[in-house]
Amino acid sequence: MPSHKQRKADKVGTLIIIGGHEDREGKREILKEVAGRVGKGKLVVTTVASEEPEESFEDYRKIFQDLGLKGVTHLNVNQRADADSEENGKLLQDARGLFFTGGDQLRITSLIGETHMETHIHNLFESGGVICGTSAGASVMCETMMIESEGGESHRIGRLRMAPGLGLIRDVVIDQHFAERGRMGRLLGAVAQNPRVLGIGLDEDTAIVVEELCYFTVLGEGAVYVVDGSCITHSNIAEEAEDHILSLYDVKLHVLSEGDTFDLKERRPLNAHQQDAGTNLENSATIPEIENPQETPATDG
Amino acid sequence: MPSHKQRKADKVGTLIIIGGHEDREGKREILKEVAGRVGKGKLVVTTVASEEPEESFEDYRKIFQDLGLKGVTHLNVNQRADADSEENGKLLQDARGLFFTGGDQLRITSLIGETHMETHIHNLFESGGVICGTSAGASVMCETMMIESEGGESHRIGRLRMAPGLGLIRDVVIDQHFAERGRMGRLLGAVAQNPRVLGIGLDEDTAIVVEELCYFTVLGEGAVYVVDGSCITHSNIAEEAEDHILSLYDVKLHVLSEGDTFDLKERRPLNAHQQDAGTNLENSATIPEIENPQETPATDG
Repeated sequence: MPSHKQRKADKVGTLIIIGGHEDREGKREILKEVAGRVGKGKLVVTTVASEEPEESFEDYRKIFQDLGLKGVTHLNVNQRADADSEENGKLLQDARGLFFTGGDQLRITSLIGETHMETHIHNLFESGGVICGTSAGASVMCETMMIESEGGESHRIGRLRMAPGLGLIRDVVIDQHFAERGRMGRLLGAVAQNPRVLGIGLDEDTAIVVEELCYFTVLGEGAVYVVDGSCITHSNIAEEAEDHILSLYDVKLHVLSEGDTFDLKERRPLNAHQQDAGTNLENSATIPEIENPQETPATDG
Repeated sequence: MPSHKQRKADKVGTLIIIGGHEDREGKREILKEVAGRVGKGKLVVTTVASEEPEESFEDYRKIFQDLGLKGVTHLNVNQRADADSEENGKLLQDARGLFFTGGDQLRITSLIGETHMETHIHNLFESGGVICGTSAGASVMCETMMIESEGGESHRIGRLRMAPGLGLIRDVVIDQHFAERGRMGRLLGAVAQNPRVLGIGLDEDTAIVVEELCYFTVLGEGAVYVVDGSCITHSNIAEEAEDHILSLYDVKLHVLSEGDTFDLKERRPLNAHQQDAGTNLENSATIPEIENPQETPATDG
């Protein structure tokens, strides 16, 4: 089996990236979307990020079975050898979807980075599978992920810690629990470091469904913030002392709510009106038919 | 005496607008700036916003006297009659500066709106005086002020409550305790209602010094966020239900730190390099000489 690094993707699949604390008892809109996408296939829930893997799996198993999934399987990793085991590899080889629970994103990457499990995950995604992650499981999808920084304060230049992520989606940096933990400062800090990356901040109980790495649609109760640094005219990030507050001029910010769609290649939101009229879509990714339209949430209002 | 509504300003003065929790024990950089601006004049501290006016005045009296001010005077208002009294009017007539403490901004406007005290405040400002306010005293300076809304969550369309403020500065809406209380959502909500207003979010222990209503300079430990909605291409604020999350595309955001200057008329930051080179200044307000240069904080680094 070729490594995912050499392998050319046939047709990359779907990412469902969740800002943490998704509703598990009410409408369960986001988890319903996951279940709808996996359909009759097998969903592997990996608790590698978690300190309490059994409890975490048990929660999700009940919900996903309640939502109609038949093949919900647990994949836990306590040490790197688990991520290289043939048994665990087989779990992923015939899966339709993978779900990363929350916890610590550094546990995920330090335990599965450069193992067979990582290769299987990329293979699943690159053959059209559904990769989902909530909280730490959301952050880890980026090529470079945020791992630690204070919320609830403005960004000081030297405060942000980043690390290599799984690289399922490139050119973006994802933050979660966004409005709830006051993380605008740190997301601006990440984008300031290199405006090549688009900052995406996800509120709790809010997700983006990323289709073929081309565009995403917002789902859930909160907002999604997109920080586009391409037009920044001034930043003090490379000039000032580490404890100095970040200055950043001319950032473009979009606030998106349920039903809004964003074109990742053009870095543009497509609102409902634009989609109806076909405006902008000529230059955008084609929006494919959704396989389970009955599972797709309607927008409010 | 003509009302401030009919009166044409000779030369409006300086506003020092503080995001709350300004340092009172360490460097006291912001309060030092206030003292420097008042100089040998009289500073009236008004505790109208506060539930504990005596304690609050006593704190500020000690600090301002310690910083060298001779004439620190207390003006408290418990009922509207106090704001109309001749005695209190005299306090303001020969003042050089006025300082609004924190508390509840609705106490300020409901107690002093359309009284002689309000007229005296406008007269002081319009004859070159220094008007300062922290926390509630910052919000109240706007023509339309925010009075209540949740922080730490994204903005829902119907959640923002606003009220008429003192109108010392027009075309802006000011929020305080900004990063600390996760208030980006509500500031975006205020700007979405009418992009004519520029949103200004002030962190704690951070101030803007507004000169002649033309430009401001940032002072203190945190950041100042400027939300410019002039280029917004889409908003759902008038379309969706009250509990729907706000969508807002193409907001311009500036993050400013100590020493940064912002031109309110051009809606542009002027960074140090631009100021040195004179770029943009041709179209901007003339930056006047500051009277007490020794009191002006240097930028870090």
